[in-house]
Amino acid sequence: MLRWMTAGESHGPALVAVLEGMVAGVQVTTADLGEQMARRRLGFGRSPRMGFETDHVEILGGVRHGLTQGGPVAVRIENAEWPKWETVMAADPVDQEVLAEQARNEPLTRPRPGHADLPGMQKYGFDEARPVLERASARETAARTAAGTVARNFLRQLFGAEIVSHVVSIGGAVAPEGPLPGPEDMAAIDASPVRAFDPAGTEAMVAEVEAVKKAGDTVGGVIEVIVYGLPPGLGSHVHWDRRLDSRLAGALMGVQAMKGVEVGDGFTTATRWGSQAHDEIDRAEGTVAGVTRRSNRAGGLEGGITNGEPLRVRVAMKPISTVPRALATVDVVTGEPAVAIHQRSDVCAVPRAGVVLESVVALVVAEAALEKFGGDSLPETKRNLDGYLTALRERW
Amino acid sequence: MLRWMTAGESHGPALVAVLEGMVAGVQVTTADLGEQMARRRLGFGRSPRMGFETDHVEILGGVRHGLTQGGPVAVRIENAEWPKWETVMAADPVDQEVLAEQARNEPLTRPRPGHADLPGMQKYGFDEARPVLERASARETAARTAAGTVARNFLRQLFGAEIVSHVVSIGGAVAPEGPLPGPEDMAAIDASPVRAFDPAGTEAMVAEVEAVKKAGDTVGGVIEVIVYGLPPGLGSHVHWDRRLDSRLAGALMGVQAMKGVEVGDGFTTATRWGSQAHDEIDRAEGTVAGVTRRSNRAGGLEGGITNGEPLRVRVAMKPISTVPRALATVDVVTGEPAVAIHQRSDVCAVPRAGVVLESVVALVVAEAALEKFGGDSLPETKRNLDGYLTALRERW
Amino acid sequence: MLRWMTAGESHGPALVAVLEGMVAGVQVTTADLGEQMARRRLGFGRSPRMGFETDHVEILGGVRHGLTQGGPVAVRIENAEWPKWETVMAADPVDQEVLAEQARNEPLTRPRPGHADLPGMQKYGFDEARPVLERASARETAARTAAGTVARNFLRQLFGAEIVSHVVSIGGAVAPEGPLPGPEDMAAIDASPVRAFDPAGTEAMVAEVEAVKKAGDTVGGVIEVIVYGLPPGLGSHVHWDRRLDSRLAGALMGVQAMKGVEVGDGFTTATRWGSQAHDEIDRAEGTVAGVTRRSNRAGGLEGGITNGEPLRVRVAMKPISTVPRALATVDVVTGEPAVAIHQRSDVCAVPRAGVVLESVVALVVAEAALEKFGGDSLPETKRNLDGYLTALRERW
Amino acid sequence: MLRWMTAGESHGPALVAVLEGMVAGVQVTTADLGEQMARRRLGFGRSPRMGFETDHVEILGGVRHGLTQGGPVAVRIENAEWPKWETVMAADPVDQEVLAEQARNEPLTRPRPGHADLPGMQKYGFDEARPVLERASARETAARTAAGTVARNFLRQLFGAEIVSHVVSIGGAVAPEGPLPGPEDMAAIDASPVRAFDPAGTEAMVAEVEAVKKAGDTVGGVIEVIVYGLPPGLGSHVHWDRRLDSRLAGALMGVQAMKGVEVGDGFTTATRWGSQAHDEIDRAEGTVAGVTRRSNRAGGLEGGITNGEPLRVRVAMKPISTVPRALATVDVVTGEPAVAIHQRSDVCAVPRAGVVLESVVALVVAEAALEKFGGDSLPETKRNLDGYLTALRERW
Repeated sequence: MLRWMTAGESHGPALVAVLEGMVAGVQVTTADLGEQMARRRLGFGRSPRMGFETDHVEILGGVRHGLTQGGPVAVRIENAEWPKWETVMAADPVDQEVLAEQARNEPLTRPRPGHADLPGMQKYGFDEARPVLERASARETAARTAAGTVARNFLRQLFGAEIVSHVVSIGGAVAPEGPLPGPEDMAAIDASPVRAFDPAGTEAMVAEVEAVKKAGDTVGGVIEVIVYGLPPGLGSHVHWDRRLDSRLAGALMGVQAMKGVEVGDGFTTATRWGSQAHDEIDRAEGTVAGVTRRSNRAGGLEGGITNGEPLRVRVAMKPISTVPRALATVDVVTGEPAVAIHQRSDVCAVPRAGVVLESVVALVVAEAALEKFGGDSLPETKRNLDGYLTALRERW
Repeated sequence: MLRWMTAGESHGPALVAVLEGMVAGVQVTTADLGEQMARRRLGFGRSPRMGFETDHVEILGGVRHGLTQGGPVAVRIENAEWPKWETVMAADPVDQEVLAEQARNEPLTRPRPGHADLPGMQKYGFDEARPVLERASARETAARTAAGTVARNFLRQLFGAEIVSHVVSIGGAVAPEGPLPGPEDMAAIDASPVRAFDPAGTEAMVAEVEAVKKAGDTVGGVIEVIVYGLPPGLGSHVHWDRRLDSRLAGALMGVQAMKGVEVGDGFTTATRWGSQAHDEIDRAEGTVAGVTRRSNRAGGLEGGITNGEPLRVRVAMKPISTVPRALATVDVVTGEPAVAIHQRSDVCAVPRAGVVLESVVALVVAEAALEKFGGDSLPETKRNLDGYLTALRERW
Repeated sequence: MLRWMTAGESHGPALVAVLEGMVAGVQVTTADLGEQMARRRLGFGRSPRMGFETDHVEILGGVRHGLTQGGPVAVRIENAEWPKWETVMAADPVDQEVLAEQARNEPLTRPRPGHADLPGMQKYGFDEARPVLERASARETAARTAAGTVARNFLRQLFGAEIVSHVVSIGGAVAPEGPLPGPEDMAAIDASPVRAFDPAGTEAMVAEVEAVKKAGDTVGGVIEVIVYGLPPGLGSHVHWDRRLDSRLAGALMGVQAMKGVEVGDGFTTATRWGSQAHDEIDRAEGTVAGVTRRSNRAGGLEGGITNGEPLRVRVAMKPISTVPRALATVDVVTGEPAVAIHQRSDVCAVPRAGVVLESVVALVVAEAALEKFGGDSLPETKRNLDGYLTALRERW
Repeated sequence: MLRWMTAGESHGPALVAVLEGMVAGVQVTTADLGEQMARRRLGFGRSPRMGFETDHVEILGGVRHGLTQGGPVAVRIENAEWPKWETVMAADPVDQEVLAEQARNEPLTRPRPGHADLPGMQKYGFDEARPVLERASARETAARTAAGTVARNFLRQLFGAEIVSHVVSIGGAVAPEGPLPGPEDMAAIDASPVRAFDPAGTEAMVAEVEAVKKAGDTVGGVIEVIVYGLPPGLGSHVHWDRRLDSRLAGALMGVQAMKGVEVGDGFTTATRWGSQAHDEIDRAEGTVAGVTRRSNRAGGLEGGITNGEPLRVRVAMKPISTVPRALATVDVVTGEPAVAIHQRSDVCAVPRAGVVLESVVALVVAEAALEKFGGDSLPETKRNLDGYLTALRERW
């Protein structure tokens, strides 16, 4: 059992991530976390606000001298803007008069279509959207990225696995068909302002974002995440909630703004005939399981179990709900028609979302790896893995 | 907390479903379960085998005189073909000589691409695919349908909610754009041999299935599930695994053969600009929350919370992996190239998958409803719901 | 993750147990289950009714030819008395006139102190106790025993572990101090009418039960469960709900009628000074971890982790709540003082409770073993265990 | 679902608690947390070290202007001694030469009997006990107390419930029989140096602790926790892990150093006959459920469900494992006999353990309350509760 929880509000003092169940002996440093935090800030289409996010990261527990210790790993991510918010977002009661002077404290009564604002207020009985949007904000994904970085390190150190993501499309701009990026392509992708693999794709997507920006609008897109280096046998067909595809879909759809998930060729597979939809098997001496595939339409998952091919998922992200060309809504206090509240935000969050999705995939796969291989320390889990791989090789 | 587990093999004596956490006082009968079992057997493209599935259903616990009692509901679904399999699938040891005479017991050593066969054998250390495919088989969905029927009844009796599904496409045959089917259209959809809403869609899909059958192939498709009558406030933005979209995606992708899930307009939303992607809000006197939407692109979910609009998800199903035009594989005993094993199967499972997906949606939404409204009996949960709706109406 | 759920009512058609998460390759047969069912029916102080319980057991899934298959194991335990109850406990609606003729259907409106009757009716909104007592009945422990038998077999086949229980006291009759019974003593204990180890203890407890019976009363007692053969390292100190003592206490207190749990010397330890309360450590060549203990006051658990000594817990069971000398209560319909309903029952359930508690301990320890050692088949889990033990031996 | 996790090491920079699933609108302040932190530091028999623990507490998320917001509540508890430990316990790698100069970094190779030291090292593959004892330390209970304080406030604001604890015995010194303390007695109990209710008990226990201290030893004891003001109907008989007694036992045994848990009269009940063991029921107009009990031997729980009487549990705590009169052990590096490592510690932790146990009880009861009454804000949960109580009153 690997568990992860996050806490904290967008403008609160800090975000917190807790990852419980990670084995001892995994190498991880504050710099590793900082590196992923920095990658998460990448991307064309960021608002100037995002420059503020310096994401000071501090490990509060679970890691000593660069190694996990078996206990829960806790990370605190400071909010650099906290001094501006410490009254409005204070945990303790604040004098009403003091609050009244704070422009930032003004009630947010015009909920944004597409955001959690309105259903959140209805559900929790709030008079305004502040308490909803503070927690619903995608800023929270920084905490998930921190937890996911520990999982990513674990997968690398256990399997030699590498997780790659790239942007497949932004709005109407779609990357051309081509080979999948590998681990060696990550630097190039991170260097693309839209985190696309193909230069022509980058160009088209940059143009799309510029057009959107000019129009005072926002835009969504599709991101692909690929994991290289996983053995066959993660996940299981025996119960629906043990299937790795089920868990991945749940975790990926659980990221803010995601509206679709597909495994391998996904929706395209639904248009195919069976003879063109599956991945035929050939004998291949020298591989772990003695076989290879002629294709990877299944995205490395059959029956909810990894089959040794690269794990591949795609996620659809909607446009940011805070649209500069403000949308029609209702003021919940007056009941009158209104335009939606406008929080400073990006034009397009697709490029940086890839880093969050990589982290989420890392967490889910790490959980499946721990279920399969057990162990309480990296050497023990590795020993169990090695025994399994040896047995596979001997059999096949 | 609502939990559901299933057990049993495709050719074992019976399937079992256990649903734990349902309130007392929900009306449900064996006939209700039988009705959904029968709907699950619907559909053009079934193999003659499927006629055998008479699905004798027996409630073993949790229901008395037509009402749930608060304890776990257990359902047993008999395998009508069991007499043919009672030696091959016997729980207890069988004399090796007796087994050797059984043709059905022959080892299945040529794993099917696309199926759990090969990764399942690798994971569990089996020499042949029988122990994998028996549990991986979609026959298991009968048990999930049984559990889901209790949840469906609960949602109807609590909210007046109705769950509708229809087939959107089979292979290349796509239903024309048109209005969404409502609860009143269910009978017509069930009467369509492909469970499509539009007669033109039915015609095209039937033609597709016939072409596929002629070609000795199989085919996938896309199914849409819609829930009418849910209040705003189910699910939550506060943690990823409380989001209703996350839970739905996990449960839907956890159904055999599903490769993609989208909420509302899903992947299409990712191509849009923000001003065209969200659902603007208007004042509407007399509604529960005093508002209405100009569209429902979000599929009734914002921030992972129901917003009072119909809940709408689409699922991509791959073609059946047992392809009559057998696929290339490797014999795991000889290591030689081979053609994949052929189990009797359908050409197209898309039409009947809708019933399974409806059931899975019912389970997930029922869980969210119980978290929101609590209660241990239907009257108590209803009283809590009524209090909430009254408060919503008073506020808005 | 190992999960177990049970379903079914005391007078329903059957009980069901589902055990999900057990590895493949564990030997288990219907006869193994039957043997534990028979042990559960042992014991002096049973009412004549219990002779009816022939506990016909059927494995519905998860086991083939005497070996678990990796999928959920489902067991159905038939109620031999079902024909007498099939109208009163029918799942489907029954004609009111037919019901009215059934004496067994008379409303149970005089709740028994000590039983779930009254709080269960209040919680679920029932007018009478039948729906509560049917599920609250200890008959359900037959299902838990079935699931636990699979776990017991797993522990024996993995570790060579054996689980022993014996009755320490019944009412005021306490077994004399003496050595702990070992696996070799189980037959003798099962042969004692009160499942006590020491003959003098047996004599005293039999006399107590006879006195109680004569007085028209019931009586409780204390049972000890010991597990031999576990390695150090099951459970963990890193989070409260990973501690093996926490999980054991939860599961044991979750058995009907249990009111206390202690690990090792438990409450006695609380009276001691530290220098007399812990188990000093000596070097011992040739043992797994190179050490031995001078005592086992801790019951084999330190910091919530097994330390290689026998695991030892004691559980306090209250007297059966259906007291022949009926207790004072209130009729919930008339509001008048009344004597509590009287269901046929035993004088003392302590002897047979040991078998249930052994099963529950088996389930909890099996879960901890799977977390520590992982694996999807018994050979894989065993290989991981062997690697761990070898590493322990090399280090110490 | 209410979840709580803690993270952090005894000498790390901070402890962290995250409580997920609490409704919005619960009043809680930093001062409330600080008050319970201060109570947790109470008690005779503390070592001078404990004076250092000033427990600076900071709410990092989930609370705004004194009210919970529906999202996870996160609390950070600073370690005032951190500057002394920041090299030895640094998360990031430290130069080996710098470390070698730190006396505090010396390997702890002589594991303490009774502590997690040895089994923890075996399980996780550590060469010394530091990584184990840092997380196994009871310092962690400060974090659980913080989370429990939010739950305590919730129960008070929802039910008017109050949680009281007192020390029943320390070593051989036992409080005299007498009436149970009520909420009005808490100040007096907190003023007792051993947190005993009766002055004679205090005197005897103080004498015991002084004798123990003089002897260079440590001592355990028994603590009772009582919750006043709960309605009937929390917990359930329908499944073992829904029973409130099961959950309480698991959570209480999950506190460091606890070796026994009993509900109501617990082990004493096991010595009784049925006619003397249960709580007879009388009609009582004007009460919530129209009944009263002649006794409360069951501790307010029947069938795992609250019955409206005070909830009462007792917990046995072992003596602190760091015994000044050091115990025999083995040096894990040399393999030679040795005396156990000696960390500065208290003589007796029993007095302050009560505050931790109160907090743990609060968390478990709050979870059961949320399951029964649902709701996302305190007013909604309260409205659901009121509807239930009204229905109870109308019926009885």
